[in-house]
Amino acid sequence: MSRNDVTEKIITAKVLKGISWAGVAEKVGLSKEWTTAACLGQMTLTAAQAATVGDIFDLSADDRKWLQVVPYKGSLPTPVPTDPLIYRWYELVSVYGTTIKELIHEEFGDGIMSAIDFSMDMQRQEDPKGDRVRVVLSGKFLPYKTY
Amino acid sequence: MSRNDVTEKIITAKVLKGISWAGVAEKVGLSKEWTTAACLGQMTLTAAQAATVGDIFDLSADDRKWLQVVPYKGSLPTPVPTDPLIYRWYELVSVYGTTIKELIHEEFGDGIMSAIDFSMDMQRQEDPKGDRVRVVLSGKFLPYKTY
Amino acid sequence: MSRNDVTEKIITAKVLKGISWAGVAEKVGLSKEWTTAACLGQMTLTAAQAATVGDIFDLSADDRKWLQVVPYKGSLPTPVPTDPLIYRWYELVSVYGTTIKELIHEEFGDGIMSAIDFSMDMQRQEDPKGDRVRVVLSGKFLPYKTY
Amino acid sequence: MSRNDVTEKIITAKVLKGISWAGVAEKVGLSKEWTTAACLGQMTLTAAQAATVGDIFDLSADDRKWLQVVPYKGSLPTPVPTDPLIYRWYELVSVYGTTIKELIHEEFGDGIMSAIDFSMDMQRQEDPKGDRVRVVLSGKFLPYKTY
Amino acid sequence: MSRNDVTEKIITAKVLKGISWAGVAEKVGLSKEWTTAACLGQMTLTAAQAATVGDIFDLSADDRKWLQVVPYKGSLPTPVPTDPLIYRWYELVSVYGTTIKELIHEEFGDGIMSAIDFSMDMQRQEDPKGDRVRVVLSGKFLPYKTY
Amino acid sequence: MSRNDVTEKIITAKVLKGISWAGVAEKVGLSKEWTTAACLGQMTLTAAQAATVGDIFDLSADDRKWLQVVPYKGSLPTPVPTDPLIYRWYELVSVYGTTIKELIHEEFGDGIMSAIDFSMDMQRQEDPKGDRVRVVLSGKFLPYKTY
Amino acid sequence: MSRNDVTEKIITAKVLKGISWAGVAEKVGLSKEWTTAACLGQMTLTAAQAATVGDIFDLSADDRKWLQVVPYKGSLPTPVPTDPLIYRWYELVSVYGTTIKELIHEEFGDGIMSAIDFSMDMQRQEDPKGDRVRVVLSGKFLPYKTY
Amino acid sequence: MSRNDVTEKIITAKVLKGISWAGVAEKVGLSKEWTTAACLGQMTLTAAQAATVGDIFDLSADDRKWLQVVPYKGSLPTPVPTDPLIYRWYELVSVYGTTIKELIHEEFGDGIMSAIDFSMDMQRQEDPKGDRVRVVLSGKFLPYKTY
Amino acid sequence: MSRNDVTEKIITAKVLKGISWAGVAEKVGLSKEWTTAACLGQMTLTAAQAATVGDIFDLSADDRKWLQVVPYKGSLPTPVPTDPLIYRWYELVSVYGTTIKELIHEEFGDGIMSAIDFSMDMQRQEDPKGDRVRVVLSGKFLPYKTY
Amino acid sequence: MSRNDVTEKIITAKVLKGISWAGVAEKVGLSKEWTTAACLGQMTLTAAQAATVGDIFDLSADDRKWLQVVPYKGSLPTPVPTDPLIYRWYELVSVYGTTIKELIHEEFGDGIMSAIDFSMDMQRQEDPKGDRVRVVLSGKFLPYKTY
Repeated sequence: MSRNDVTEKIITAKVLKGISWAGVAEKVGLSKEWTTAACLGQMTLTAAQAATVGDIFDLSADDRKWLQVVPYKGSLPTPVPTDPLIYRWYELVSVYGTTIKELIHEEFGDGIMSAIDFSMDMQRQEDPKGDRVRVVLSGKFLPYKTY
Repeated sequence: MSRNDVTEKIITAKVLKGISWAGVAEKVGLSKEWTTAACLGQMTLTAAQAATVGDIFDLSADDRKWLQVVPYKGSLPTPVPTDPLIYRWYELVSVYGTTIKELIHEEFGDGIMSAIDFSMDMQRQEDPKGDRVRVVLSGKFLPYKTY
Repeated sequence: MSRNDVTEKIITAKVLKGISWAGVAEKVGLSKEWTTAACLGQMTLTAAQAATVGDIFDLSADDRKWLQVVPYKGSLPTPVPTDPLIYRWYELVSVYGTTIKELIHEEFGDGIMSAIDFSMDMQRQEDPKGDRVRVVLSGKFLPYKTY
Repeated sequence: MSRNDVTEKIITAKVLKGISWAGVAEKVGLSKEWTTAACLGQMTLTAAQAATVGDIFDLSADDRKWLQVVPYKGSLPTPVPTDPLIYRWYELVSVYGTTIKELIHEEFGDGIMSAIDFSMDMQRQEDPKGDRVRVVLSGKFLPYKTY
Repeated sequence: MSRNDVTEKIITAKVLKGISWAGVAEKVGLSKEWTTAACLGQMTLTAAQAATVGDIFDLSADDRKWLQVVPYKGSLPTPVPTDPLIYRWYELVSVYGTTIKELIHEEFGDGIMSAIDFSMDMQRQEDPKGDRVRVVLSGKFLPYKTY
Repeated sequence: MSRNDVTEKIITAKVLKGISWAGVAEKVGLSKEWTTAACLGQMTLTAAQAATVGDIFDLSADDRKWLQVVPYKGSLPTPVPTDPLIYRWYELVSVYGTTIKELIHEEFGDGIMSAIDFSMDMQRQEDPKGDRVRVVLSGKFLPYKTY
Repeated sequence: MSRNDVTEKIITAKVLKGISWAGVAEKVGLSKEWTTAACLGQMTLTAAQAATVGDIFDLSADDRKWLQVVPYKGSLPTPVPTDPLIYRWYELVSVYGTTIKELIHEEFGDGIMSAIDFSMDMQRQEDPKGDRVRVVLSGKFLPYKTY
Repeated sequence: MSRNDVTEKIITAKVLKGISWAGVAEKVGLSKEWTTAACLGQMTLTAAQAATVGDIFDLSADDRKWLQVVPYKGSLPTPVPTDPLIYRWYELVSVYGTTIKELIHEEFGDGIMSAIDFSMDMQRQEDPKGDRVRVVLSGKFLPYKTY
Repeated sequence: MSRNDVTEKIITAKVLKGISWAGVAEKVGLSKEWTTAACLGQMTLTAAQAATVGDIFDLSADDRKWLQVVPYKGSLPTPVPTDPLIYRWYELVSVYGTTIKELIHEEFGDGIMSAIDFSMDMQRQEDPKGDRVRVVLSGKFLPYKTY
Repeated sequence: MSRNDVTEKIITAKVLKGISWAGVAEKVGLSKEWTTAACLGQMTLTAAQAATVGDIFDLSADDRKWLQVVPYKGSLPTPVPTDPLIYRWYELVSVYGTTIKELIHEEFGDGIMSAIDFSMDMQRQEDPKGDRVRVVLSGKFLPYKTY
């Protein structure tokens, strides 16, 4: 038994019961981005969060314990994703990778934008020419230090 | 001769002359994100833009013609980037990939967030616990259609 | 349980019952290309379409719910396909890739031909020297924009 | 010295002199698709075609001999292309690969659509919602035979 | 259920019952090369052939239907085969690849040797210094054409 | 300096002087298959053979020494070849790999067909439906032995 | 069912019953190297050998038939092995590969050391500074021949 | 400048001057295996060894310094070698990998055979059925320890 | 059945019973690093250690036998790990790899730091700016020797 | 021109002049670990550091500017390193990867050990059974947070 089994149960329950991620997030009391990632096996839940999620998706006591264990992260089956929606994000990293690097270094010096002390917020941006997906990423800048 | 040669000249001139991307963008009259990507060989410039960029980096007439040709895009030497700053972005796609997919589909239905009709804005976000990199991504939603 | 399970059920039912894709498409009321892709787990069906498909292939109520969920797309088991028919298409992209790129840019400027706002039509083209497969692809041109 | 050197000379001359592929094709007297692929190092030219192309791009006598040699084909630097325009075509093969296979087999039985006895025609398709790229592919069907 | 399941049944029956491929081919009335490839899941059988094969290997009615469906071809688990016998063939392509290309082009011009309109015949060649495997390959030459 | 440099000189001289492989083979006094492979850097020449080949392609004394050194073999730039003609051979190994294995084992028992004690003969096979490439491969069978 | 299933049964029986490979080899009457490779699914057994091995590991009649079938060889799950003991051997090939090639060619000319007409003997070599593994490999030299 | 440049000089000098590895080893006073590996850029030489090797191959003072620097080891251009002689060694690891592992563990317990405290000796083994390559490998056994 | 099955049982029991690795190590009487690696299928246990571990995790007699068998080592599913915590260690090897190599060679000469005669100790290092992970690695230096 | 060119100059000067990393570090006034990584192109130097390093290695004014630019990090030519010393570190990550993950999570909860806010100290550890390499790694723990 593994966290993957719990993730599959959650996804199956979501499809069959018609649950929405926004609804889960509201009950958990956190953002839809963190909550969805947690349900998809990428984040660790507290006992209380696991109880809430477990109730929503009808999970067993054992399943709820797995939700509280730090998972082996990484949600994609291949290094270059085949799904078109996710590939577009991979493409952004490929096309804009050196640009992102140059601009963060120009502003902050040598270091990285954290993917751990990080948050993401995704919203519909209405637009007469076609609505847009607006995503705000915020990651702490962590400088390389000499020693 | 190729666009890569021009990109290398631009990078070398930038290092040796101490030019900033923000300064280039101001002269070009566009965002620093688009301008940097263009100088790094990922975007196509108009004749006027090529003239401005050519003057800043002391490029030849031939170099300026190459700037106006659509480049073969992709800025990274390996499918999984080794540079830590760029890897963190790859990691975001890996860890949050299925989350991004779920939430966009929940809001918009089947389709993608365009990486072409797309813009990016990167800013310093001051924070007493350590400044953050704040990035706003905006991409048009493109629905899959039946036919 | 996953969409893949439903796809396998559909394929098995098709083989054992001798169903044709053209027949399914006719009942669904859409092109055979879109309908086949949908049955093979690459497109999302409406409730009505899922009901039609579900009846044809004797799918359960749960199966029909899965058909209405956006799938993780990508239908091939390896990055370079081994099946000779599909490899020929991969070969077209490999041999003609830069040609396609040059000609679209010559006509439209920088941008892409959409694989989302896209349709495909495949027909037998009679020919005394041996019949041909004639495929018409139509994808919206999406220009890169400055910002 | 190799065919690649000649291809690079052609591309450089095209950029610096502002030559169009359509113009080259007209002088060669063949389609723009075949002519561009040939100039990009994927097809073999006759002596007469090589003379025409050599005059347009100011190629040497030796260069013209290389144009008449069968090249090692394949125009892309990586198995999965990074350029967004070419990737969209790779994505079509990935997403629609099994669909294409099913429909050709349904119509023709076991066999392939030839990538050798093949032609391609690419046109602008005007559309009030945004112009489209229309591509017609025609490949001879080659049946597998028993023996 | 899939063609692979039928292939596994055939292989298992062959081992446990001690059936020979030559014997199967004789009953099917075709070459041992085509027949073996078909039994190993690479070719499509007619109803009559499926009946013969089904009787030999005790296959169910459903199994026999799968034999008549065009399979997803490719019989090896890795791009570079690990099995020594099959690797030697891969090595021939690796070592002699450019030689084969040069000689076919010298004789026929630009084009390929078909792997579809193709036959193979494998025989023991007696030799006092050690018997040899003699294989005759015959593939139609398909020329590239201009258009 | 390396054998590759000599191979490139040979190929360039062949293109510019219009030499045929069959002609080279005749002067060397061996088959066109072995001779071409040797000229393409896959086989080792004797001093006499190197002299003959050196005269044909105007090679220097040093070049002729390199021809007599055992080369690092393997003539293809990628594990899966992109060139259509060579790919068809790779496809034969992929599609017929397990068939070849079964039939050789059925006839000879466990062992391999040598790729070293090996010869190849390639001929045009006239055919009213289109000429064919006929290739005869002959490799010594080498049995696995117990010890 | 496949040879892999039999291999797994053998390994499981060995662990649970505490059987030694040396003991198996003694009963089979062959070297421990060949016998172990055979039990691990890399060699083909005669009926008598299969009976001996079958008795030792309590294999069924069907299992014993599988032992007499030529297996698809290759014992490692990845092209570069992760297990430290096996990796050291891979490292020897990586570090000494060109050395082995040079020395065999210097002694024998162009050709290979057979991995088929081959034997291996592994012994403990006592040494006051720490015992050593001593391995003797013996493979027939097979020369490349002209034809 | 790098060690690779010195290795290339050594190989070129060897070919053009007709030097033998055995002769080099004799002058260096060590085995032909270690000496060849060192000349091919895999081992580090002392000043005295570098002087001897430098005299044999006419190396400059700078080249001799590079010979005394620890190189980045690994002599092969690809993870799976394409050269048939070296591939056979890779195949031995692939086919016998698990056998080697089992037998060393049976004799010594958990640990590895060192590839560092290691020696190799390669000899011609005369045999009426065809001479053989006989290789003796000796590596210290290094046990895993608890802590 | 295999060691992996036992590893999965251990992990599942740990999650469901809330066992800590430090607690297991204390009962085994060895470091938490070695003990955890052993429980995760990377080390070989003695009968006594297997009994202790078996009692803690409720393992069967057969499971305990598997714990005493040398495992096929390597704990990660992909060559480049996707899990962020483990990736950071991969990144250290990537970024500092050549530095580590230079400094060990500068201090010790040519050789390696053993990964077999090796120990690791991981501790919390309190720090007012945020606690740190402090890891001490100790590996015997093994020099390359001439022979 | 690029940072790689400067790195190559530094390495060449080090070899030819016999400079030690410890000596460079002393003049720079920082640890030998950071200083070596910086000289090998992995860290960014201040103007003062670049001046010191530039004097030691006789670098030009332009070279010194490159030392102050943030480099594209990653020091290894392949994802799995071939050099034995560096491979042993890769092996530690492979064998102990899940162990490191478990123990850091047991002590700190979900998060990572930073590879940015990080230091390394490498020392000779004298030992009568053979000196050891002792490495102390210290990285800030960065917890995943909910949002």
